[in-house]
Amino acid sequence: MKKMTIAQLQTHVYADKEKNLDLLAPMFERAAAGGADLICLPEMFNCPYETPNFPVYAEMEGGPAWTRLSGLARQFHVYLSAGTIPEVDAEGKVYNTAFVFDRDGNQIAKHRKVHLFDIDVKGGQYFRESDTLTPGNSVTVFDTEFGRMGLCICFDCRFVEIARKMALAGAQVILVPAAFNMTTGPAHWEVMHRSRAIDNQVFMIGTSPARDLSASYHAWGHSMVVHPWGTVLSQMDEKAGMKLTTIDLDEVASIREQLPIMKTRRDDM
Amino acid sequence: MKKMTIAQLQTHVYADKEKNLDLLAPMFERAAAGGADLICLPEMFNCPYETPNFPVYAEMEGGPAWTRLSGLARQFHVYLSAGTIPEVDAEGKVYNTAFVFDRDGNQIAKHRKVHLFDIDVKGGQYFRESDTLTPGNSVTVFDTEFGRMGLCICFDCRFVEIARKMALAGAQVILVPAAFNMTTGPAHWEVMHRSRAIDNQVFMIGTSPARDLSASYHAWGHSMVVHPWGTVLSQMDEKAGMKLTTIDLDEVASIREQLPIMKTRRDDM
Repeated sequence: MKKMTIAQLQTHVYADKEKNLDLLAPMFERAAAGGADLICLPEMFNCPYETPNFPVYAEMEGGPAWTRLSGLARQFHVYLSAGTIPEVDAEGKVYNTAFVFDRDGNQIAKHRKVHLFDIDVKGGQYFRESDTLTPGNSVTVFDTEFGRMGLCICFDCRFVEIARKMALAGAQVILVPAAFNMTTGPAHWEVMHRSRAIDNQVFMIGTSPARDLSASYHAWGHSMVVHPWGTVLSQMDEKAGMKLTTIDLDEVASIREQLPIMKTRRDDM
Repeated sequence: MKKMTIAQLQTHVYADKEKNLDLLAPMFERAAAGGADLICLPEMFNCPYETPNFPVYAEMEGGPAWTRLSGLARQFHVYLSAGTIPEVDAEGKVYNTAFVFDRDGNQIAKHRKVHLFDIDVKGGQYFRESDTLTPGNSVTVFDTEFGRMGLCICFDCRFVEIARKMALAGAQVILVPAAFNMTTGPAHWEVMHRSRAIDNQVFMIGTSPARDLSASYHAWGHSMVVHPWGTVLSQMDEKAGMKLTTIDLDEVASIREQLPIMKTRRDDM
């Protein structure tokens, strides 16, 4: 058995960037006390999800937010999937970026959102990330003491190719910092996580911010963990909170043996 | 509006091969009276789903079963997705094959199951199609007066690549003659059809045999039609019967416009 405990922090996102970071330590303390090996934060956890905010809140890799996140991983001796934050590069381009740290606070992965979220549903959600963001270009996997994992951000996970590429690169767990909304959330959040889990025979871990009806973008919440067989192991409601879930990574090999999808797929048609 | 009415025949499969064909005409009559443009039959509708049966029941393309099916399409002036039957080729190889006929009884598509169903779930289903079947090698799309459609068979649909390839080749509707079982049915039947619909922004039409507890293989039934937004438009229970569902193919373009998955996917990572 290769058991791992995940703590998902479905946080409230405040307009005060620092406050979002200040509030993490007590939550990390509670997560660590609960046996967390990996703490997951939501997409844009320190920046209210509005396109004009991204350049204003953006920081560079190695900047103040990055440094505090790295320090928290080290302090609590946990793996940290630090949600996403707006990242600015040397040329001034802004990305929706996920950093992952190991138990010593070393950065072990960085993913820039590849598929920007541009949506215009009749009578539903409108949003255009591409107004202020630049897309990344890479598929991201990284190694931990529990095995290889992959990470993509929200709308990325809509595209079957990216989860498949992570799984083919050896990922047994896929992390998805995300912020579905009140149109796409009830329609697609659960079925997306379940199908990616079943199709790729991996654990799926989707972490959302809490819903804030005073914000302009209303997140669906419902952070969840799905087993490679497609069973929902845990799912939160829309409120702020923490959820601990223990998974056994040996079950990936077991499911792949029983239902041979990953080993009988064909790429020759 | 580009409306089309589908009749799914969730048939009981009899050991008497001819009887399965004899019983079709009255069902086709009812379907045509209900306005059916396309009639869909289930996987192996004329051959109880057991590996030793496949070579015994197999016929060649253009053989007696094929001829009767073509005749039924012509007689009732409907498109016919003729489920699947065991097909033997000139070398004696046996395939799990789907034929599609137009309103004049012309064959417009033929798909040989690409991914054979070999499964061994602990305490659940065991089956090995590869004991007696040879796999096909092609992705199948075809044109109708309503637009382009694709077709794959049961376990084929487990693989995200094949539905994606059909959608990229222009399919707006994907037909899936299938026979999930009492292990995989409750776990994966609905989520698979919903996710393929959402991910590829197509209509999904899965047609199963009725459940027969006196047979060795217990089909899940639950023939269903799913909208490109992922909504279940209709779903049968496990019993034999017919279900008529009307879809509007113009909704494919509408969904693709609102949620730009098919046009923003990237293949450059």
